[in-house]
Amino acid sequence: MPATAFPSPKGSNAPEQVHITQGDRGGRGVIISWMTPNERHPNVVRYWKAYDPSDVYTAHSQIFTYRYYNYSSGYIHHATIKKLEYNTKYFYELGRGDAIRQFSFTTPPRPGPDVPYTFGIIGDLGQTYASNSTLGHYMANPKGEAVLFVGDLSYADNYPLHDQSKWDIWGRFVEKSTAYQPWIWTAGNHELDFAPEIGEYLPFKPFLHRYHVPYKQSGSTSPLWYSIKRGPAYIIVLSSYSAFTKYSPQYQWFEAELKKVDRHETPWLILMMHAPLYNSNNYHYMEGESMRVIFEPWIVQYKVDLVLAGHVHAYERSERISNIRYNITNGLSTPIKDKSAPVYLTIGDGGNIEGLANNFTNPQPFYSAYREASFGHAILEIKNRTHAYYTWHRNQDDEAVASDSTWFFNRFWYPKDESN
Amino acid sequence: MPATAFPSPKGSNAPEQVHITQGDRGGRGVIISWMTPNERHPNVVRYWKAYDPSDVYTAHSQIFTYRYYNYSSGYIHHATIKKLEYNTKYFYELGRGDAIRQFSFTTPPRPGPDVPYTFGIIGDLGQTYASNSTLGHYMANPKGEAVLFVGDLSYADNYPLHDQSKWDIWGRFVEKSTAYQPWIWTAGNHELDFAPEIGEYLPFKPFLHRYHVPYKQSGSTSPLWYSIKRGPAYIIVLSSYSAFTKYSPQYQWFEAELKKVDRHETPWLILMMHAPLYNSNNYHYMEGESMRVIFEPWIVQYKVDLVLAGHVHAYERSERISNIRYNITNGLSTPIKDKSAPVYLTIGDGGNIEGLANNFTNPQPFYSAYREASFGHAILEIKNRTHAYYTWHRNQDDEAVASDSTWFFNRFWYPKDESN
Repeated sequence: MPATAFPSPKGSNAPEQVHITQGDRGGRGVIISWMTPNERHPNVVRYWKAYDPSDVYTAHSQIFTYRYYNYSSGYIHHATIKKLEYNTKYFYELGRGDAIRQFSFTTPPRPGPDVPYTFGIIGDLGQTYASNSTLGHYMANPKGEAVLFVGDLSYADNYPLHDQSKWDIWGRFVEKSTAYQPWIWTAGNHELDFAPEIGEYLPFKPFLHRYHVPYKQSGSTSPLWYSIKRGPAYIIVLSSYSAFTKYSPQYQWFEAELKKVDRHETPWLILMMHAPLYNSNNYHYMEGESMRVIFEPWIVQYKVDLVLAGHVHAYERSERISNIRYNITNGLSTPIKDKSAPVYLTIGDGGNIEGLANNFTNPQPFYSAYREASFGHAILEIKNRTHAYYTWHRNQDDEAVASDSTWFFNRFWYPKDESN
Repeated sequence: MPATAFPSPKGSNAPEQVHITQGDRGGRGVIISWMTPNERHPNVVRYWKAYDPSDVYTAHSQIFTYRYYNYSSGYIHHATIKKLEYNTKYFYELGRGDAIRQFSFTTPPRPGPDVPYTFGIIGDLGQTYASNSTLGHYMANPKGEAVLFVGDLSYADNYPLHDQSKWDIWGRFVEKSTAYQPWIWTAGNHELDFAPEIGEYLPFKPFLHRYHVPYKQSGSTSPLWYSIKRGPAYIIVLSSYSAFTKYSPQYQWFEAELKKVDRHETPWLILMMHAPLYNSNNYHYMEGESMRVIFEPWIVQYKVDLVLAGHVHAYERSERISNIRYNITNGLSTPIKDKSAPVYLTIGDGGNIEGLANNFTNPQPFYSAYREASFGHAILEIKNRTHAYYTWHRNQDDEAVASDSTWFFNRFWYPKDESN
């Protein structure tokens, strides 16, 4: 889409690129982020409960800037507000004078086994007309309360010199959703922005400046891997592009993290990373093997319900399969059906600039339940501790149409075969 | 060994923990490193050719310090001297007054296809009596001209609070070799020193302060992966504990690096990392799979001669095998003999504090040519572009005894089966 499609909002030093994400462990916190283009201040967010507008709170942001080659960012604000009421609508306001902007969000229910909650799932979004279609379709669906985003946001690195203004435009493009409901961020390869040829050596620099996450609250030492509890779900975000071998910080953290999950509090255990551990597309085929061989035994042991990934610009849903018997010499290297295994969802079909990956391996392997090279997004409606209804929506259909739909049964509470 | 076994040298602010490594791409540079315990200065190294002692050069160090929990380091000096003559003995001198200390080294021959050169190979050394025995044995062998060290230096992290004084003691312990010939460093898991429980979040902090390598000269953006040319060998060092998946900086660098190797200049292509890609010990079994599945196709394609690793506290030499046909569904997951494949050497038997790994898988798999749980080291005598003689020396034997020995034939110039 042309840059002019998403101009800065009107008013002096108007806050823009507003986005929110969960700001604490359990859903009573929100990180509100925005950019002011010209001046550092104001750095205040005013917020109040919809049912009690007379009681206005304020919070102040921390302010960051960064340089990238010939680009200097505006002032990037991150304000964490905490101790909100569960299940409550809040308004918040940024800016001053002729540039006041107002938004709202609703906090999730207190984590618990039988609180319904609905997530959208989007990946590899970019900023094309297809991206716009995907986001429009998702927003047309009234059910989504928060987005699980599986990486690759702006694709700024696909433009000359990793044109950082594309990050700004993307922030303005998605604001219509990200300012109103939390997007849970995962780092993809397009977040690396690693460009030694122009003197940019620090991986993830723009992404980490622009998108903050509550990583310390889960004992993580890096914003690239962390976890949150939201309603009935325990969500663990991993980084495909950081070290994850045994002894590495990410490995140590993930090992400890899995032991913390209490399926009586949060029955649904969901893993997110960018590069899929299973898919059957020739594009990026087997790129997730490196992580799969090290983490899959835990994924099965802890009965993860769903593993969400992007990266491959197509849609795919796997059977419940595992491939953890291999010991180099025994030949047991083919995936098998496994009731303790998760379903692997590849949703890299947000609408990026690189186009669809429509070259699947043939024949369709038995571990692949459904696959299609179309842009789209998914909706995960968690109903209770045992059942969740899942739909995938192609952009070429009306949002009401689900091209792929299925019930997922919880692996801890109701580990039955969904196909029966 | 007791800390008192390796006291600081006598004299005021005497330079200690002296070690050298290659300081440039081709062998005409040396990084000279040492610590001064009390004062920053002097930070001068004086050096001269043995055949021309009247012509004295000087170089100045860059000085570093670091804090780690309750430890404050002494002044860590790194001085790079360049444009030395090839194949020439140099003396160098550190300190002043009553604390002057003199050492020497010999530069390698200019890189070329038929210059003989002999490397020692040591890993997982630590600071036990076994470590002392290994180092003594290696030094008793007059052939070794430089050491390829495959990671795990001091094991300071095995002591309470990662006792950083163990790094100092280790530096004094190995000085009798490291001050006189370059050790080529690889980072092992014990270099991570990652200890969030005491507020130490930065992986590799002590190691990276103490051991500098010439990484920028090979276009690397991290000292944890780099390459050098030394005599007839092109040596590529990888990091098992950094990101290496596709798109990561290490992956991108390694991919470009392999294309740079000119076997007409440096016939012997040697890869080093800490975690072995092949071994058959139950201890750490298959920990290298994550790197193997991503890098093995390149290792075979570029006909790497030898892959050196440590980590497993035992000795093992593989057959020339590969396992790169697997595509998830075809069942082809068992290693096969491959003339384009390297020999994998596991030499994690330096003498660390954790003891020997004497629990091999049974039966010995066909891909394992020789294995034994004994402390020791190896010697690689490159004779010319086609032949190298390799020996492994157990500490329980005299150095003159080789428990395992074989000729390696170069994969580019003479890719014959060595077993015929």
